[in-house]
Amino acid sequence: MYKNAPIGVFDSGVGGLTVVREIIRQMPEERIVYFGDTARLPYGSKSRDTIIRYSRQNIRFLLTMDVKAIVIACNTASAYALETVEKEFELPVIGVIRAGAVTAVNATRNGKIGVIGTEGTVGSGIYTEVIKKLNPDVKVTGKACPLFVPLVEEGLLHDSVTDEIASRYLSELKGRFIDTLVLGCTHYPLLRSTVGRIMGSDVTLVNPAYETALELKALLEERGMSCEPGSAEDDPDKYRFYVSDLADKFTAFATSILPKQVKETRKINIEKY
Amino acid sequence: MYKNAPIGVFDSGVGGLTVVREIIRQMPEERIVYFGDTARLPYGSKSRDTIIRYSRQNIRFLLTMDVKAIVIACNTASAYALETVEKEFELPVIGVIRAGAVTAVNATRNGKIGVIGTEGTVGSGIYTEVIKKLNPDVKVTGKACPLFVPLVEEGLLHDSVTDEIASRYLSELKGRFIDTLVLGCTHYPLLRSTVGRIMGSDVTLVNPAYETALELKALLEERGMSCEPGSAEDDPDKYRFYVSDLADKFTAFATSILPKQVKETRKINIEKY
Repeated sequence: MYKNAPIGVFDSGVGGLTVVREIIRQMPEERIVYFGDTARLPYGSKSRDTIIRYSRQNIRFLLTMDVKAIVIACNTASAYALETVEKEFELPVIGVIRAGAVTAVNATRNGKIGVIGTEGTVGSGIYTEVIKKLNPDVKVTGKACPLFVPLVEEGLLHDSVTDEIASRYLSELKGRFIDTLVLGCTHYPLLRSTVGRIMGSDVTLVNPAYETALELKALLEERGMSCEPGSAEDDPDKYRFYVSDLADKFTAFATSILPKQVKETRKINIEKY
Repeated sequence: MYKNAPIGVFDSGVGGLTVVREIIRQMPEERIVYFGDTARLPYGSKSRDTIIRYSRQNIRFLLTMDVKAIVIACNTASAYALETVEKEFELPVIGVIRAGAVTAVNATRNGKIGVIGTEGTVGSGIYTEVIKKLNPDVKVTGKACPLFVPLVEEGLLHDSVTDEIASRYLSELKGRFIDTLVLGCTHYPLLRSTVGRIMGSDVTLVNPAYETALELKALLEERGMSCEPGSAEDDPDKYRFYVSDLADKFTAFATSILPKQVKETRKINIEKY
């Protein structure tokens, strides 16, 4: 009955658009409603309680758009809130952590995996926990990289300062001889070339966005919830974008990373939900 | 009648404690209630509308503590919200911009002033506007320094990376031959030595916190609202601290920059106000 309803996706800001990009690539039929919580970002340095409260509000807002499933396209919110909210809401909710963990476990050859992310994600230990459940023999080393998001947002993607900061953050992981590194924050794929050069070509970089879209596709198919082919073809509102602040800035950024031009982003007051 | 009531101070996080420190130094008799909006920080990269809404909520919360005056100890909130909220509330509200502007105009000898701050503060043009009203002949050059706050929060106060970023941000101001530089963000005094070394000893650095406390003192005296000597002497709640997230982290930081140990910080839900 809800087959043709949109998928709801939320993130603290623009980072989750890397997940939207993968969903569009893998499921071009599906409608999407995206919410970026730009009035309260970042999530990575805030507490579990606060992130759970924000996640509930974000989901309640997306439910007003009659979404059929929720994707938490933010590592910190997936780490802190997924377990709580998936019990509280009736529709399927998936995060980005499990998909990233599965890919990493499948990719490692020497059983040594590194995870980089925000203080919230790394401090939660969630990647270690999920990876250990998949394979208790794997060793996981986490490293918080709090300056990566501000550096990306300042546009210093290829810069000597970013190289220097990345070298410091990653030196500990290099010392542990990891062969697989999870980019555990949606902003980090934008630093992929810097991180890859420092870690060396023997280290596999895992971007959870790709794997999350695959997991979502499997889930929708399994439950018979995939959109009917062609149903959204002429829908001008196939992709809808909402933020809690700075809608125009978001539109410009979204257009730069999504395959189609984003016409409009609407601003809402998320504190009301 | 409200003489012995506390002064209400708010900021997006811990930065405003530099203003509290100055108030304590200059008015040791006064009670203070501080609110740090740690669940929604930073303010510097968000819109005018959002910052006005947040400022109203922060003031409404402080009013529940029966404060006699409000200090907006945040440059961005002073830039965006002061003009609006001082009309909406009956008690005196002061910000940090005017005090910084007055000091800078008094300090400059060649009539060239620089202002560094967040994107919000610099983009608002408020310092230029206030300085021009004081002296239309002064030239003002603003420069946003978005990485300074994350660098301070990462603890890189004396570091080659901070030197490199500061050199880039400040090169434009050096090229304008300014002789006075306003540290237009409450975090920036913590980078004072780096900024001072790059700008050179001929450039006067202005910290609005000091001058704001002076302005507040004059205002309270003028209106007969100063605390009666000794009235708060034995009050265990003379200084009260509230945040919207991460109370323990705040307590530790506040203790490190205030003259007395902060015993307790209480967490509130600011979205309810």
